[in-house]
Amino acid sequence: MEVIKVSAHSRSTAVAGAIAGIIREHGRAEVQAIGASAVNQAIKAVAIARSYLVQDEIDIVCVPEFVEVDIDGQDRTAVKLVVEPRK
Amino acid sequence: MEVIKVSAHSRSTAVAGAIAGIIREHGRAEVQAIGASAVNQAIKAVAIARSYLVQDEIDIVCVPEFVEVDIDGQDRTAVKLVVEPRK
Repeated sequence: MEVIKVSAHSRSTAVAGAIAGIIREHGRAEVQAIGASAVNQAIKAVAIARSYLVQDEIDIVCVPEFVEVDIDGQDRTAVKLVVEPRK
Repeated sequence: MEVIKVSAHSRSTAVAGAIAGIIREHGRAEVQAIGASAVNQAIKAVAIARSYLVQDEIDIVCVPEFVEVDIDGQDRTAVKLVVEPRK
């Protein structure tokens, strides 16, 4: 599945729209962010996506985990948020 | 229930320990953060708390939402993370 990559400059509402669309289509989304500003935008996007999905009667939760990623040949620790419907 | 307030200077591992302790005792924890650095520390703490709770066979998820809080007479928007076992 495609991972939604969030930067410090990403708009939370745009990311939220992407999350909501992927949840509707695939039932699960993955969001990846590196750095405090990007992580903040990502978690705000999940909060906003929750409101978008109320009309679909889908209640989402997120599961944060650390992942190592390669950025321009350098190892960086990213935060991955797995977003899925509440069971 | 007591809310765990996280600042930019909070240690993620200390917050993670608090989350894990409250989850073990009460089955649900609330974490509140204002600002990108604090939100980042909070979400990292949830990721770390997940690893602490593996030994208890508890798998946690978090639900982010916005809340308005009063800080020294000023309205601020905080991010609240409700942490609970995966159903």
